[in-house]
Formats: sequence, C-alpha cells, structure tokens
Amino acid sequence: MLDKIIDGNIRAVSRAISLVENDGRDKEALIDQLYPNCGSAVVWGVTGPPGAGKSTLVDKLIKRERAQDHKVAVIAVDPSSPFSGGAILGDRLRMQRHATDPNVFIRSMASRGHLGGVAGATSDAIKVFDAAGFDVIIIETIGVGQTEVEIIEISDIVLLVLVPGMGDEIQALKAGVMEIGDIFIVNKKDHHGADKLKAEVEYVLNLKDTKNSERNPVVMTNANLDEGIQKLHESIYEYLETIKNNQQLKANRKKRLVSEIKNILTAKMVEQFSNYVDINQEIKKWSEQVYNGQIRPYQLINDKIQSFIKELQKNDIEN
Amino acid sequence: MLDKIIDGNIRAVSRAISLVENDGRDKEALIDQLYPNCGSAVVWGVTGPPGAGKSTLVDKLIKRERAQDHKVAVIAVDPSSPFSGGAILGDRLRMQRHATDPNVFIRSMASRGHLGGVAGATSDAIKVFDAAGFDVIIIETIGVGQTEVEIIEISDIVLLVLVPGMGDEIQALKAGVMEIGDIFIVNKKDHHGADKLKAEVEYVLNLKDTKNSERNPVVMTNANLDEGIQKLHESIYEYLETIKNNQQLKANRKKRLVSEIKNILTAKMVEQFSNYVDINQEIKKWSEQVYNGQIRPYQLINDKIQSFIKELQKNDIEN
Repeated sequence: MLDKIIDGNIRAVSRAISLVENDGRDKEALIDQLYPNCGSAVVWGVTGPPGAGKSTLVDKLIKRERAQDHKVAVIAVDPSSPFSGGAILGDRLRMQRHATDPNVFIRSMASRGHLGGVAGATSDAIKVFDAAGFDVIIIETIGVGQTEVEIIEISDIVLLVLVPGMGDEIQALKAGVMEIGDIFIVNKKDHHGADKLKAEVEYVLNLKDTKNSERNPVVMTNANLDEGIQKLHESIYEYLETIKNNQQLKANRKKRLVSEIKNILTAKMVEQFSNYVDINQEIKKWSEQVYNGQIRPYQLINDKIQSFIKELQKNDIEN
Repeated sequence: MLDKIIDGNIRAVSRAISLVENDGRDKEALIDQLYPNCGSAVVWGVTGPPGAGKSTLVDKLIKRERAQDHKVAVIAVDPSSPFSGGAILGDRLRMQRHATDPNVFIRSMASRGHLGGVAGATSDAIKVFDAAGFDVIIIETIGVGQTEVEIIEISDIVLLVLVPGMGDEIQALKAGVMEIGDIFIVNKKDHHGADKLKAEVEYVLNLKDTKNSERNPVVMTNANLDEGIQKLHESIYEYLETIKNNQQLKANRKKRLVSEIKNILTAKMVEQFSNYVDINQEIKKWSEQVYNGQIRPYQLINDKIQSFIKELQKNDIEN
C-alpha cells in the first residue's frame, strides 16, 4: 500500500484517506512511513462565509493548476459532520467537472472518531496527498467557527473569500477573520458594494503592523464568469515566492508542527488517563452527586485532581 | 459580592461575568458558592446562519418576556473572538433598545483564557445569571461550526432560525444542524421560497424517529415586522411545558452536567501534566527533530506516552 501511495495510485490514496478519517492504529504507522516523502506539496486554505462562492473559485483555480500540469487535491471540510457524519454539500458538485481527471482528487472530510478532531484528520490527509505527489492541496471550509480556523491554519497560504452585501453580521465577522487571511478576495465584484468592500479590507490591512509581514493582496474576482482568476492565481504564486524567500514559510511550518504534536500528545494523554481510572464511570457518579446538590462542581473536580497529583508525585518522573 | 449577585445587583453580576471570562481561581469558588441558588432559570439557545435575523428575533422575544415581567439575560457568543478578543457585532446593537431596562442584561462573550473554551465560559456565565434571579437566559451564536454547536447544546431549548433563499450551501448546512433544533423558525416569511423551506423542514422532521422525542414546531416569522413572534413565544412555552412534564428537561440537564464535568476535568488534567514535565519545552525540541527528519511524528509521541504510562503504572492508583 505504501509504495502504491507514493506512486500516486488513486485507489491506494483513497484507502489511506479513509484510514486517516477512521483513526485506526494502522494509520499512525502509515503516516510515519509516508513522512520522509512529505514536504514538497503546498497547502492552500480557502475560507469565507457561506455563499461567498468558494467552491466556484476553487473550481477555476483547479483549472489554472491543471493547465500547468499540477496534480491537485481538494479537502472539503464539512462543519455539519459532528451530527450527520459528513454530508456532502451539493454546492461542491460544481467541482465535480474535474471528477474524471485522474490528477484532481476531491474528498469531503468528516470529524468522526479522529482523536485530533477534523484538524487532526485534515493534517494527516495532507501528508497522504503530499507523499502521493500532489503539488497543491486545497483545503476548503465553510463556516467561521473556531474549528474551521484550526483547520485553515494548517495551510501555507490562506485565501479569504468575501462578497459584498451580505449584511451587517457578515461584515462584522470579517474583522475577526481578517487576521487569518494572506490573500483577500472580493468575489462577485459586479455586485453592489464591491468597491466599498475592497476599500474597507484595504483600510483594515493598512492598520496591521506590517513589520515582518508581507503585503496582503486584495483581488477582485467574479468566479462565475472566470474574471480576475488569472490575476488571483498569479498573486498566489507571487505571495508563495515571497514567503519562501524570506523563510516565513519554513517558520510557519515549524510552528504548525509544534501545535500538531501538542494536540496529538494531549489527546493521547487524556485517552490514557481515561483507560487508567475508568473516568467515564466516575464522572457519571459525580454528576449525579452534583445534580442532587451533595457537592459543588469545581470543589469536586479540584479534589479529584489534587488526589491524582499526589499519586503522581510519589513517583519521580523526570523526562 | 456573593450576596449582591444573588440580590441581582447588576454591577456585581457584570463583575462576576468578567471573572468567569478571565477564568481566575476566584471564579471557581464563586461558581461553587452560587451553585445552590441555580436551577430555576431556563436557557434558550438561538442559532442559525449569518443574516437569518437572529438578533431581531431575540429582540422581539425579549419584549414578550418583559411584558410578563421576566428578567432576561442575553449571552452573545462571538466566534471571531479567538482572534480579536471578542469584537462586538454591530448587528447586535438592535437589541440595545433594552439597554436602559435594568431587567435585561446583554453581554458579549469571548473565549480568551477560559480553560473550557467559550462553551465552558458560557456555562459558568449561565450559573451567574441563574443565581442572580434571571428567569430566561438567551444564548445567541453566529456561525455553524462545532464550537457554536457545543455552546448551543448547553441550552434547555434550541431555536434554529432559517431563512429562504440563502443559496445551496446554507440549505445543505441545514441538514447538519437540523438535529440540534427543538423549534424551527422560518424567518423572513414574506421572502420568496419561505413556504418551500417550511415544507422541506417539515419533511426532514417527519423522517426523524419520533419515539421519545417531542414534535418539533415549525414557526414562520417576520421578525422585522413583529409577525409570528407571539405564536413563536407560545410554542416555546408549550414545548418547555412538555419536556418538563415528561422528564426530558431533567434528563438533558443531567447529561449536560456529565459532559461539563468531563470537559473541565480533561482540561485540568492536561494543565497539570504540562506543569509537571514542562511539556511545552519538550514539544519544541521534538518538533525540531521531526522537522529535520530525525524522528517520525507518531513514533515519537507513542514512545513518550508509553514511557509516561510505565511511570504511572509503578504506582497503584485506584480511585
């Protein structure tokens, strides 16, 4: 299977992604073995409010990438997955025109099971695509919650897609997500308010501390009509070139590795803890006591933690 | 401070909420002391896509609640907070007409610092409002990510606000969030497609297993014109009455308590672990090794976990 993945065999890649999603023990060995073949793919994150036209935009970008004979993988992260187990968004069917192209791989990711959540699963999936020789891996998320942000932060470059006229609430959200964008896209540029939105984005960008940070392009597009996409595509490559040259890309990747290791370690430590004291059973008992007013919640938790630490301290654990 | 909160003193309540947000040690003692005074407030969660009209709807519901002389607290949860530290959404200014009413308390919550994330902070804030004699606590979230869902699941009753004509993506999202709604609201009922949306929602609800679960009302409103709000308000009270009578409310609250205790305990255990082995420093060292290809990521983590477990097993911890 390993060799097949590295050869770029699509069935093998597909099976590996399923393995990653289901978080089997085999997955860890697989990722570890693929790891030495990783590092050449570039990860693009695409985010923005629902209805901004992200899928259409990604579709047009795939076309540009294919024109350069690049292999492209798309990971569509579905925030509804905690409930439905990963409904495929009808909207993403727009990308399916590439479905018959063996060098374009589109996959929806769900969060079920994976110890590190969707972000952890996405991170592992990237390694599979990377090792399989995909040049570009596009992560598309919908929604603007914290989980989506964690996912998008895995990317080497983040494209934030905005559209004019989506109401106060969306505009306010913008302020919050501005910080994660590298390239800003005002899509549906023919719509009323597009110029104003571009001006607003540029204004906010000007307020940013530009020391050590690259100038962030603001590009206007109309993805439906394929307008502005060529310019966007060029901006992406210029930006990547800059962050490669000034070592920012490398620094970002190292930083992400730290948080990735931390997340896996944390999740695994808690898992071990749970195995050790059958904590689920205990918690149920405690909850009943708290509900009945026999004990107060934080007092109970602190007592349990303290007694646990005392046990730990009997040992001399030095790493 | 404790007595003042229980008396409903607004300054004291406000200070307590800040304490909860900043997650100080004092907070735990405060929540524990307030705890015996909790349990009488009812928590309404309001969620739905950006632009659905949630804030306007909440505004009209507050009016109905005030007409019955109920004290109302609103917690507006801001998903942009991981970056901006909690920008106040301009949109929510619509609710500010109640700002001069001492029996309406509106507060934006950020996630900064709180060990249990925004959901943990919200959960503690609810206890403050509950102990302070607020009859109804409304949690409003924007966004549809996993974090928002965790927050909304703290509620006794969830109002899911939908609007017609927001495009494929929003409609697809619906399928995912349908499972968390108790009452479904088709807002902007004068808009094209409202009847179709209502029919769709009812269709999906009919597919649900109705065993052990109440019939979920679907209410059409036009919050801007105050249309349908009276009916919605009545539906909320009827639904609450039903889940009180059939013990579902009690069962839900117990279930939430289990997950709340689990979350706090987990977060605290990891915190203790970190203190114990200066794990942050270690992880940085490991990341550098992984980045340079000296060691593979999962192998490294599993080795570290295994050696930690061995140390643990030298002790006989039985709880």
